[in-house]
Amino acid sequence: MGIVAVLGRGVVPADEPLLHADDLGVLRGDGVFETVHVRDGVPWNLTEHLDRMRRSADRMDLDLPPHEALRELAGQALAARTESGEAALRLICTRGREYGGAPTVFATLNPITPDFPKVRRDGVRLMPANIGYPVHPEDVRAGAPWLLGQVKSLSYAINMAGQRAARAAGFDDLLWISADGWCMEASTASLMWIDGDVLYTVPPGRTSILPGTTSAFLMEHAADIGLRSEERMIRPDELFDVDGGVWVASSVRGVAPVVALGERTLPVGAKNEEVLKLAGFPVAD
Amino acid sequence: MGIVAVLGRGVVPADEPLLHADDLGVLRGDGVFETVHVRDGVPWNLTEHLDRMRRSADRMDLDLPPHEALRELAGQALAARTESGEAALRLICTRGREYGGAPTVFATLNPITPDFPKVRRDGVRLMPANIGYPVHPEDVRAGAPWLLGQVKSLSYAINMAGQRAARAAGFDDLLWISADGWCMEASTASLMWIDGDVLYTVPPGRTSILPGTTSAFLMEHAADIGLRSEERMIRPDELFDVDGGVWVASSVRGVAPVVALGERTLPVGAKNEEVLKLAGFPVAD
Repeated sequence: MGIVAVLGRGVVPADEPLLHADDLGVLRGDGVFETVHVRDGVPWNLTEHLDRMRRSADRMDLDLPPHEALRELAGQALAARTESGEAALRLICTRGREYGGAPTVFATLNPITPDFPKVRRDGVRLMPANIGYPVHPEDVRAGAPWLLGQVKSLSYAINMAGQRAARAAGFDDLLWISADGWCMEASTASLMWIDGDVLYTVPPGRTSILPGTTSAFLMEHAADIGLRSEERMIRPDELFDVDGGVWVASSVRGVAPVVALGERTLPVGAKNEEVLKLAGFPVAD
Repeated sequence: MGIVAVLGRGVVPADEPLLHADDLGVLRGDGVFETVHVRDGVPWNLTEHLDRMRRSADRMDLDLPPHEALRELAGQALAARTESGEAALRLICTRGREYGGAPTVFATLNPITPDFPKVRRDGVRLMPANIGYPVHPEDVRAGAPWLLGQVKSLSYAINMAGQRAARAAGFDDLLWISADGWCMEASTASLMWIDGDVLYTVPPGRTSILPGTTSAFLMEHAADIGLRSEERMIRPDELFDVDGGVWVASSVRGVAPVVALGERTLPVGAKNEEVLKLAGFPVAD
């Protein structure tokens, strides 16, 4: 593994254990995290990630250190780096040890798996997978904050189980479909598509999915490639009718065209190259 | 904290960090656990806990060590104990470190919080809380194994958020209610009730809730207190109509009468003392 830095301690040996046996991060998946793309030595969209991490922490009543402390922690990990090229920076904050004390806050920095530039070029095949609940009406979401809608918590067992199931079935990832038949998100990525001159993504506010930082960047900069941007609900079947292509967007795998959903192929959109270039993740030749 | 033992290493200093920064237990809440009551120096229902842990691991494609290795691990922790009195033994198996390797397997042993014998005597007040999804029909459960029904994974962030919300509202715990209005389970406990001469609990197979080991023990031994036992679906309102009382049952807090659900009180059942005695957890005077 790569570099590990701990809040208040700086860089520590990566092969030394860091967390106690009773850390609530492991006992309960109780904490929040972010994964940030490092390009040209700099964490991309770091402010947006820190803002999202704070919203996650607030919704979990978790005492996240201030932005400045997290920036300093990220900086310590980055300063210890000797390689160039893209990398993945993780920021993690758990609720700390079971019988009280401060949150456990640390960062890890790892090179990007060499598969990702190829995935961005070749695209992903998604398995549609039932997420087990419908799109909740506003009153349900407001009345049940414990469901942790839009929160990026450490409790990812279901996402990981879904990923394993998708891979076992020969897919690269899954696309969560709500129990009432709406597209939600991939296991760790946002869904985006182009129809006409509009770049779309699924509304996080209405669906409780995680608001993507990479998808938000593309939505904000859609005009640079001649598009407007809009949030919209969409059903899986409708993805085959859009005329400009479908993508997944996430912080580390980056942006990749969706080339199949279930057994049906999806054509790569005419603006694929422009979308990928706008996102700026290295793509394999 | 108490005693920590690690598979293959035995007892280790509890104040020494144990898990690496990239352990998937903390990064993804990816692993399984059990919490076992220790009484008279012996883990109670250990075989049932190990069986359930294996079912959880199987459903998560996790390579759990054999029962014998886990028994030995538990024995190492127990042998290091110097106090008597009840205790909580945790067994944890994570998917190990991110870039491969063996699962991380360890045990912790802690004294029981002194509140629990009082809670068993005084009972718990439960806040009804929407779990966000309906009771799934059989075909949904079978077709979506990634939803991890009946699995005791480390991804407990929602349960913990629910507990915090219940406590903030002046309750002791919550009772999960399905989106279609059925009682499910408490945040970390099974629901049980007596009506007529029958001891009931919610069917885990039909609802995907965790099959409780303590509730299973009580169901199996119901005849000892003159009752039959049955699984049944029940709605929150119906709990006020049962004539023999309502309980929560879990491995460490043990068995406690439910004395309120939301704003309405529930009477303690005539067989409360017999139920608590059958379960055998120490109760405050």
